[in-house]
Amino acid sequence: MTTASTQDTRAIIEAARSEGRAYLTPGECRSILEAYGVPVPSERLATSAASAADAAAAMGFPVVLKVVSPEIVHKTDVGGVVTGLETADAVAAAYESIVASAKKAVPNARIDGVLVQQMVPAGREVIVGTVTDPSFGKLVAFGIGGVLVEVLRDVVFRLAPVSKSDAAGMLDAIKAKQILEGVRGEGPVDRAAIADIIEKVGRIATDLPEILELDLNPVLAHEKGAVAVDVRIAVGEPPTERYRPPHAEIVTAMNRILKPDSVAVIGASAEAGKIGNSVMKNLINGGYQGKIYPVHPKAEEIEGLKAYPSVKAIEGEVDCAVFAIPAQFVPGALRECGEKGVPGAILIPSGFAETGNVAAQEELQAIGREYNIRLMGPNIYGFYYTHKNLCATFCTAYDVKGQVALSSQSGGIGMAIVGFSRSAGMGVSAIVGLGNKADIDEDDLLTFFEQDEHTQVIAQHFEDLKDGRAFAEVASRVSKKKPIIALKAGRTTAGAKAASSHTGALAGNDKVYDDILEQAGVIRAYTLRDMLEFARGMPELPTPKGENVVIITGAGGSGVLLSDSCVDNGLTLMAMPDDLDKAFREFIPPFGAAGNPVDITGGEPPATYRATIKLALEDERIHSLILGYWHTIVTPPMVFAELVVDVVREMKAKGIEKPIVASLAGDVEVEEASEHLYRHGIPSYAYSTEIPVQVLGAKYRWARKAGLL
Amino acid sequence: MTTASTQDTRAIIEAARSEGRAYLTPGECRSILEAYGVPVPSERLATSAASAADAAAAMGFPVVLKVVSPEIVHKTDVGGVVTGLETADAVAAAYESIVASAKKAVPNARIDGVLVQQMVPAGREVIVGTVTDPSFGKLVAFGIGGVLVEVLRDVVFRLAPVSKSDAAGMLDAIKAKQILEGVRGEGPVDRAAIADIIEKVGRIATDLPEILELDLNPVLAHEKGAVAVDVRIAVGEPPTERYRPPHAEIVTAMNRILKPDSVAVIGASAEAGKIGNSVMKNLINGGYQGKIYPVHPKAEEIEGLKAYPSVKAIEGEVDCAVFAIPAQFVPGALRECGEKGVPGAILIPSGFAETGNVAAQEELQAIGREYNIRLMGPNIYGFYYTHKNLCATFCTAYDVKGQVALSSQSGGIGMAIVGFSRSAGMGVSAIVGLGNKADIDEDDLLTFFEQDEHTQVIAQHFEDLKDGRAFAEVASRVSKKKPIIALKAGRTTAGAKAASSHTGALAGNDKVYDDILEQAGVIRAYTLRDMLEFARGMPELPTPKGENVVIITGAGGSGVLLSDSCVDNGLTLMAMPDDLDKAFREFIPPFGAAGNPVDITGGEPPATYRATIKLALEDERIHSLILGYWHTIVTPPMVFAELVVDVVREMKAKGIEKPIVASLAGDVEVEEASEHLYRHGIPSYAYSTEIPVQVLGAKYRWARKAGLL
Repeated sequence: MTTASTQDTRAIIEAARSEGRAYLTPGECRSILEAYGVPVPSERLATSAASAADAAAAMGFPVVLKVVSPEIVHKTDVGGVVTGLETADAVAAAYESIVASAKKAVPNARIDGVLVQQMVPAGREVIVGTVTDPSFGKLVAFGIGGVLVEVLRDVVFRLAPVSKSDAAGMLDAIKAKQILEGVRGEGPVDRAAIADIIEKVGRIATDLPEILELDLNPVLAHEKGAVAVDVRIAVGEPPTERYRPPHAEIVTAMNRILKPDSVAVIGASAEAGKIGNSVMKNLINGGYQGKIYPVHPKAEEIEGLKAYPSVKAIEGEVDCAVFAIPAQFVPGALRECGEKGVPGAILIPSGFAETGNVAAQEELQAIGREYNIRLMGPNIYGFYYTHKNLCATFCTAYDVKGQVALSSQSGGIGMAIVGFSRSAGMGVSAIVGLGNKADIDEDDLLTFFEQDEHTQVIAQHFEDLKDGRAFAEVASRVSKKKPIIALKAGRTTAGAKAASSHTGALAGNDKVYDDILEQAGVIRAYTLRDMLEFARGMPELPTPKGENVVIITGAGGSGVLLSDSCVDNGLTLMAMPDDLDKAFREFIPPFGAAGNPVDITGGEPPATYRATIKLALEDERIHSLILGYWHTIVTPPMVFAELVVDVVREMKAKGIEKPIVASLAGDVEVEEASEHLYRHGIPSYAYSTEIPVQVLGAKYRWARKAGLL
Repeated sequence: MTTASTQDTRAIIEAARSEGRAYLTPGECRSILEAYGVPVPSERLATSAASAADAAAAMGFPVVLKVVSPEIVHKTDVGGVVTGLETADAVAAAYESIVASAKKAVPNARIDGVLVQQMVPAGREVIVGTVTDPSFGKLVAFGIGGVLVEVLRDVVFRLAPVSKSDAAGMLDAIKAKQILEGVRGEGPVDRAAIADIIEKVGRIATDLPEILELDLNPVLAHEKGAVAVDVRIAVGEPPTERYRPPHAEIVTAMNRILKPDSVAVIGASAEAGKIGNSVMKNLINGGYQGKIYPVHPKAEEIEGLKAYPSVKAIEGEVDCAVFAIPAQFVPGALRECGEKGVPGAILIPSGFAETGNVAAQEELQAIGREYNIRLMGPNIYGFYYTHKNLCATFCTAYDVKGQVALSSQSGGIGMAIVGFSRSAGMGVSAIVGLGNKADIDEDDLLTFFEQDEHTQVIAQHFEDLKDGRAFAEVASRVSKKKPIIALKAGRTTAGAKAASSHTGALAGNDKVYDDILEQAGVIRAYTLRDMLEFARGMPELPTPKGENVVIITGAGGSGVLLSDSCVDNGLTLMAMPDDLDKAFREFIPPFGAAGNPVDITGGEPPATYRATIKLALEDERIHSLILGYWHTIVTPPMVFAELVVDVVREMKAKGIEKPIVASLAGDVEVEEASEHLYRHGIPSYAYSTEIPVQVLGAKYRWARKAGLL
């Protein structure tokens, strides 16, 4: 595309907007598509029968002729349209008859001529378009036209612009993609031609942000080429860009806030049951080793520490100020933090946007920007950073150190995270409440956790993304290094309605979230337990080196259910090579089933489990292992658990590490055995054939997206 | 349809089979469809131009003409086909030209005439057919034609025959059903005409079992009428009917077997660790109050009870014989049971079909039929019937009495059932192992549990149904009274493969299972945990009286996730009437969100939970309640649990009972609170917003199918 045409397209849009039009005319639409090289049917205005015939011959038959007159709206009614013209003579004759009919029907009409249009042969209908999402900005959409997109909503979204290879990937992301390959004897459509249109639409959306919607519907795709037959373009006020601090600034500030050397508690209290007292106790009893400065207008000392009348009275630097005062006092105290140069405020108080008090929240945002203070919250429980023994929260303390960082938009979910973690003994690096997200949001956290040496996996619960585009950009980068798990609440219409009454946030179309999270390499969890189990299990599993999964089971019935789960979770059950099949058969009874699952049968001693697991770990063709244990007297649960831990340790000493998960079927002793296995890096579940496979599946999904498989 | 045409159709099929043909000719297909009144395009053989014109006029224009000659296969190539004829003159002319062209192209061809066929106008393509399933027998299928059925497998199955109303229901069971309503300006198709064809195809399949497959593809459906344009019929050996004892006989035998007054243990042993010893100990220590007869060739006494050298030596009647001897001795001992008149044998031993020894299993089946002994197994763990304190198994004992009966095809899953039950304190009536299912299968169990006063809910794990049709028939009846939960393993291709290596059973197409279980009113669980949680929760919940579900939550974030789960599980969040909304607002803070979810906000005292829950229970417009609790100091977990139990008790005293489930978000104390709630009839889960809603959803699915809603 030349610069000239960019200027042309800009002029078109500005003209339409200055006239107050929401839609471009067909001619304007056509000009924009042509400027970007999107194929459209040829057309030419002819003012004589001869020039119509010439035009038709130049663009190729068949053609359609349509009268052009400002006075004639319903062209067909006046005999103003003739379709399917196959020869120059027929075109010339049609020209004359159209003009005659039109003149007769509308005697006073000014006839500007007749439009000669190329008739595009039937092809497979696809739809390409762009929409402007309140959170993600410009999106490109692709779907199969007709009933598939209308009835079954078979469509895929990506952030605009898209590269040509991403555009090509969109063709494989729809359910009915087989239609593009050809069914009922058709050949495949020209994928490159469609991808080219998608890519160009992405550029149009990016270059011309005033285009709020653009629909090419249908695009007729052929075995060679694709043509946009119909187009509709809506224009309006382009979305405004949200301010974001530069990356280095975010990192510096977030490191001071989440790993502070000093914490001030604004509203510290000596009175048990008060939030300001709970925060103080959590800081002190949690074992935080940095400086703690209680701030209270009158107290001399709180919980044995010297108190200050104001944050400004503190001698040393303050990295992080935790607010535990009523909403109406927050702005004043926040200003003082600004004057003191505190980089971050943890705004526990509620009474802001979540109660409808949007103005009060905007006031905080303004102060934050004025003094360059990052704000967490308001309306949050605070945060935990275990590797600093820091519980900057009024909720129960938590101190089990580990590699998972979790965050939640909601306090209830935050408490569920703490409870689940404690119950499961899950080690975490951080738990963070984001609440109203007046400032700090999920992508700020991602930016911090990306470079935090204690965090290897990040799990985030949210109801909306205030800036989905920024999130997607950061997540795309971070997910290459560290798995990101997202629980997006308000997925469904009913759920989205609840979300908007909760936070005043407009929940986005869930399919958009699905697609963009996928594009960004984020592992989406669809339930709270899934998020929690993925967060717990993924750091335990080494990254698999390949797709070959093998099930070894003592219970054939578990093997069947585990196989079901493998398919449900996109895992590949390895086709067992003959030599390996033979090797397994050496260890199992003659009626045991080798193949995959390897069914060692129920009555086998520990040695059989040991030998088969060892074989699977040692063989390089096998990349991951799912164990299905069946409780028997011959191999009791803890004997099984210990032998597995033992084999794994032996193999690790030889440098062999593979993801292993286990499903334990049996009486209640299998619960203890599962815990023993989990403590030794093998995610294991009693009475479930699906959860261990889901956890392994999540690891695979991540590894594939991160390009490690 | 007249009897005469039934005879005609039978003659057609017998002729085809006697000639060894697998497919009927187009003419034969047409005759069968016509005999049943399935609309097909009119056609007539004309032998002159005039008769062709007459025929066309009679059937209506447009028509197509096709040459009929045994020597001419590719009619189009010889100018033997003319389509789109609109007038009698055109038909006459076409007749002459076809005959002339054909004679010229194939001079020696015998020309029998020209076929005049009605051209069916374009319409929406649907597919109607019948297939013969190895387990379910004759099935009717319906789908949208073209890419939808081919690419997206959008098809629904029902057992044949189907009533007209069931046939009409099939039109609503496909994903793309909106196409039948009309899209892009089309009107709705003639649903009655399609349903009529489906019903007729069901009758054809039932009347003519030799028709193994019948495809009407496409049926062109119009706004008025529908016509089967193309048909294909495959014939072959009809499936054989499996023997089943009469209902009364099944009930009598199963009652003696599962609730026996006397049990013999064939292969009782005094040696700890032997299966025959474990069974003896479980019977004695489990507190079984009936007679126990150890059978052992030499022992005088086993575990303090008099032993018998053979079952025939026992003085009294024996209701149930538990086998704990090696496979090769089973046939002899089974014969002795037969001679003794024992009605049921519990065949724990393995070494039969599951190890490939099919002949040995067939021998047992023959003995069973000869002596009218019902066989459970072989290759099982046995069974439990808690209300008789009966543990007829070598596995660990279980004695918590309750209303749920569970069964499993696999021993591993059976042990998972025992472990989960013990861990959750789940009361059960029975746990039964079915193993190889040489005889007793899922529908025998359903028949027993239907009339068992201690069983209110039935949960079954299976990999195949040896007689899916019998199962569906019994389940359709039983599910009206008692919920049936099914975990069908081997759902997926990989899973089905594992199933067939495990039991030698051919796992059916999963979509067929899905549809037929649906038709039979069975609640399908897709994972082991789902089956277990549904089994545990469903008996606790009263049957809802309507669809209106209300969420009351202290955590807005939980409310959003609970709403998501409601939509996922087909539950209806009641649109809150203004007066009720106002009534709720009386109790909650001004910034709390009424509507639905009712968000009472996090800082509220017990009184707010109490008042809102009471209001929801008392208002008749609300039918079910989902509680989302958030752990705070103001309302600690056990305080919440106790107040809920208290309100529910108070309401129950007033005759108000509604299904209530709860999701508890908080620190580990919420686990104890959840257990307390569950013990009092409120299925409650810590750290999960989805499981409680799934359980409620299962209850609703059942109530709807049972016609109670």
